[in-house]
Amino acid sequence: MINIKKNILNKKIIIPEATKPVANYSPFTISGNLVFISGQVPIVDGKVAFTGKVGHDLTVHNGIEASRICMLNTFGILSLALDNKLELLRKCIKITVFVNSDKSFVEQPIVANGASNLIKEILYPEGNHARSAVSVNSLPLNSAIEIESIFEIALEN
Amino acid sequence: MINIKKNILNKKIIIPEATKPVANYSPFTISGNLVFISGQVPIVDGKVAFTGKVGHDLTVHNGIEASRICMLNTFGILSLALDNKLELLRKCIKITVFVNSDKSFVEQPIVANGASNLIKEILYPEGNHARSAVSVNSLPLNSAIEIESIFEIALEN
Amino acid sequence: MINIKKNILNKKIIIPEATKPVANYSPFTISGNLVFISGQVPIVDGKVAFTGKVGHDLTVHNGIEASRICMLNTFGILSLALDNKLELLRKCIKITVFVNSDKSFVEQPIVANGASNLIKEILYPEGNHARSAVSVNSLPLNSAIEIESIFEIALEN
Repeated sequence: MINIKKNILNKKIIIPEATKPVANYSPFTISGNLVFISGQVPIVDGKVAFTGKVGHDLTVHNGIEASRICMLNTFGILSLALDNKLELLRKCIKITVFVNSDKSFVEQPIVANGASNLIKEILYPEGNHARSAVSVNSLPLNSAIEIESIFEIALEN
Repeated sequence: MINIKKNILNKKIIIPEATKPVANYSPFTISGNLVFISGQVPIVDGKVAFTGKVGHDLTVHNGIEASRICMLNTFGILSLALDNKLELLRKCIKITVFVNSDKSFVEQPIVANGASNLIKEILYPEGNHARSAVSVNSLPLNSAIEIESIFEIALEN
Repeated sequence: MINIKKNILNKKIIIPEATKPVANYSPFTISGNLVFISGQVPIVDGKVAFTGKVGHDLTVHNGIEASRICMLNTFGILSLALDNKLELLRKCIKITVFVNSDKSFVEQPIVANGASNLIKEILYPEGNHARSAVSVNSLPLNSAIEIESIFEIALEN
C-alpha cells in the first residue's frame, strides 16, 4: 500500500502551494479517474528558479534540480485538485519532460530523473510511470524545463 | 449549462470543414468518452495561412492568430467526429501547443492564448482546460503552430 | 475483425523483445483499457540504429526506417504489457512523433509514416490513429526519432 503522507514526511518533502497558470488556462482538468496537469515550469516563490539552456547556461545537475521542482509543483497542483487529499493518488500514468537545450544535448534521461525520482519517493513502493523526454529549443519564461503529466486517482463514492 | 450553438452564433465563429490529414493517419480517434485530435496546423482553405518562425518571420500577434486557426480546425474535426453535434462536447481536457520559433523566443503562453481563448468562447461558461506550450525548431509544412488536443464528450445512450 | 497474428505473419514482421527504459521510469502503464507507452527510440539489439538529425546527418528515408523501428519497439513493449497476447489490442489511439532535425526540416509527416504504416499493417483492416509530428532540436542518445503512444486494449473478464 502507498502511504503518501508517511513518504512525504520521511523524505522531508515540502509540497508547494499550487502555482497559478501563466496565461488563460487551468492548472488541471479531471476526466473520470484521470487528472491531467498543465505543463509545469520550475517556479519557486513566484519566480522561475532555473532559466536558460541545460548543458549550456546550466549544468546537468541544475537540470535535475529544475526537473524535480517542476514535479514538486505538479504535486502542489494535485493537492489543489484533490482538496489536499494527496492520498487519493493511485498512479502516475505518464510524464512528458521538455528540456530547454541546444541541439547537441543528449542527456535528457538523466535530467528527467529529477522528476521521476520524486514520483517514486512520494508514491513508494509504487511510482512506476511511463515517460518521454525530449529537448526543445525554447520554453515559456525561458524556463530550463517544462513537464506535463497524467495521474490516476481513486474515485470517491 | 454550455450552449455551444448560441456561443458560436453570438461570437460569429465560423467552424471550418474538417481538414484532411497531411499523411497516413486519422484526424481523430475516440476511446470511451475521450476524443483525441491529431496535431492541427493553421490551414485555411487548404493552405497553411501562417508559415515560419514566430518572433522571427512572424509577429507574436500572427502567432496568436495562427494558434486560433489551429483550434478552429480542431473544432472542425470535432464536428466531423460528432456528426455535426458539437453540443455533445463536455470539456476540453488538454491542449499541447507547439510553437515554431527560434531559440530565444519565450512568449509561447501569449501565442497559445489564441487557442485557449477560442475554447473559452465556444464552451462558455465552461472551457477550463489543461495546457502545455513549448517551442520547437520546426513543424510540418513550415507551419507556425501545431496543436494537439483531447476533449471529453457525452456518451449517447 | 483484426487478426494480428495473421497480419504479422503475412507481413513477415518481427516484433522485438521489449527494450529496457534508459533511465528511472517504466516502459508502460495501464489505466483502465488504455496503455501508455514511454517514448521509444530506434534501438536495435541494444544500440540506437539511427542517430543524428534527419535531413542533415540522415536522409528522409533513414528517418522513415527509424520511425518504423520506434514503432516496432512499441509493439515489443505492448507484447510485454499484454503477456504476449497482442491480440488483445483494440486500437491505436494516438502517437506523437518527435523528429530530431535542424530548423529548416519540414517533412515530419513523411518520416512519421514509417510508424503509421506499421500500425496499419499490424492492426489491418483497422489501424486508424490520431497523430502529431513535430521536430525537436535534440533527443536522448542522439536518436533520430522518439515516439510516444497510447493504445486501447480489450479488458479481460
